[in-house]
Amino acid sequence: MLTEEQKKQIEIENEKIDKTLSDITNRIVVFSGKGGVGKTTISINLACGLKLKGHTTGILDADVTGPNVPKMLGVSEQLTISKNRIIPQEKYGVKVVSLASMVSEDQPIIWRGPMRSKLLNQFIGDVEWGNLDFLIADLPPGTGDEVITMTTKLKPEMAIIVTTPQAVSLIDSKRAITMAKKMEIPNIGLIENMSGLLCPKCGYNIELFGAGGGSEQAKEMGVEFLGSLPIDIETRKAADEGYPIVLQNDSTENSNAMMKIVERIENQIALTEKI
Amino acid sequence: MLTEEQKKQIEIENEKIDKTLSDITNRIVVFSGKGGVGKTTISINLACGLKLKGHTTGILDADVTGPNVPKMLGVSEQLTISKNRIIPQEKYGVKVVSLASMVSEDQPIIWRGPMRSKLLNQFIGDVEWGNLDFLIADLPPGTGDEVITMTTKLKPEMAIIVTTPQAVSLIDSKRAITMAKKMEIPNIGLIENMSGLLCPKCGYNIELFGAGGGSEQAKEMGVEFLGSLPIDIETRKAADEGYPIVLQNDSTENSNAMMKIVERIENQIALTEKI
Repeated sequence: MLTEEQKKQIEIENEKIDKTLSDITNRIVVFSGKGGVGKTTISINLACGLKLKGHTTGILDADVTGPNVPKMLGVSEQLTISKNRIIPQEKYGVKVVSLASMVSEDQPIIWRGPMRSKLLNQFIGDVEWGNLDFLIADLPPGTGDEVITMTTKLKPEMAIIVTTPQAVSLIDSKRAITMAKKMEIPNIGLIENMSGLLCPKCGYNIELFGAGGGSEQAKEMGVEFLGSLPIDIETRKAADEGYPIVLQNDSTENSNAMMKIVERIENQIALTEKI
Repeated sequence: MLTEEQKKQIEIENEKIDKTLSDITNRIVVFSGKGGVGKTTISINLACGLKLKGHTTGILDADVTGPNVPKMLGVSEQLTISKNRIIPQEKYGVKVVSLASMVSEDQPIIWRGPMRSKLLNQFIGDVEWGNLDFLIADLPPGTGDEVITMTTKLKPEMAIIVTTPQAVSLIDSKRAITMAKKMEIPNIGLIENMSGLLCPKCGYNIELFGAGGGSEQAKEMGVEFLGSLPIDIETRKAADEGYPIVLQNDSTENSNAMMKIVERIENQIALTEKI
């Protein structure tokens, strides 16, 4: 049972969250069943891609125990707090908030679920996000506390589920899609990442994780297929170096595919708003 | 505050866990900071490898929201319960327990931390593990509830941290090693997985995740380096098909490397027992 004091605190917290959300037009959660499928790489590229299209955009790193957004965006400064509010960092015109910008690099976050959820509530309600067209939340793998909290509190317009063509990843993404449906998220899209790998020298098709399976799964489960992204060493390197591939001058197959997904997201959300 | 009834239940639960653990000589937890680094593939191969060496072995799938152990071991039957005790399945001579063997394939596990921890306590105390030389627990990525519960309750002799050579993975594995140290696990070992990729046709060195970094990190952080495993399409396919690579007749570079790691684990643990 909650005490009166605790109830009052939750009420204040929820009011702050609602106030923040009223200035953010579209919220998108990016998640997956399996880990290591490229959620963060895709999240930072979508955020930068939406910014390129002229939208004000923010990215919230909701992977509390493995926060990699700052590294992949090349943000190394610590977050600042002003008048009890967290001030997002800004990189490539995108606002960024992550726990990685509050702790040192080797510090493990040994926190149980309730504490992680409390932090995520603060990352919505206590952050000066300001007016945003899009806020992208990069979630940890699985369907645990962070995913439950973010899909409940953020009330997202869209869930993007990332999978690879690997059998175990497709099983896990099925679970993730079912969860998004249960949470009644209005738009659900699937991306097949790490789809196929051609040897950069001889062009041989290397079946690392296989290819295909994503579009059939999307059809079978009645969700939007947003596109396939090939395995691309440049995209991985760009992320490791903190410089997302969509921002680099030479447009590659992968950055073009990423921008096409950005356009599909714009269309999908515009369509929902018309209804 | 807990009621008397709740306190009594926790006491009973802990007694059951202690009783089970008294029959299990060595407990090993396998975890990582980042997801998708190959924890489960390595866990099933280590379990089968230890069995090949003549040890009685079990594997506990502690990735509650993304349980992939049964798929990778080719176990498709449901778990049975007899006299209020869970009977582990047996595959390739290894005992297996996973939530995936209790729910359907597309069912998401939308559980917050306390419930996931309660299940894991049951997966120790309520399972007829019997006498085991080794119990391997395959944990989810990060340093959240499952990892805290398993390292606390299982009192492992050894923690194995899996990383890839990718910069973001090395950052996350640093956090995982620091956690294992804080939890005072006596033996900590690091495996570098997905290390290097040669084109199967022309032999070109494809820098997918890069290579190296693991052994330096192990030295720097004062933990045992257990070895590198190359990216290997056969290993991935074998796991997708439920037939671990170490059990296949043609010994490949990867299955040999995996068995060398098994021997290092045997030596490491034998060494601790002598002290």
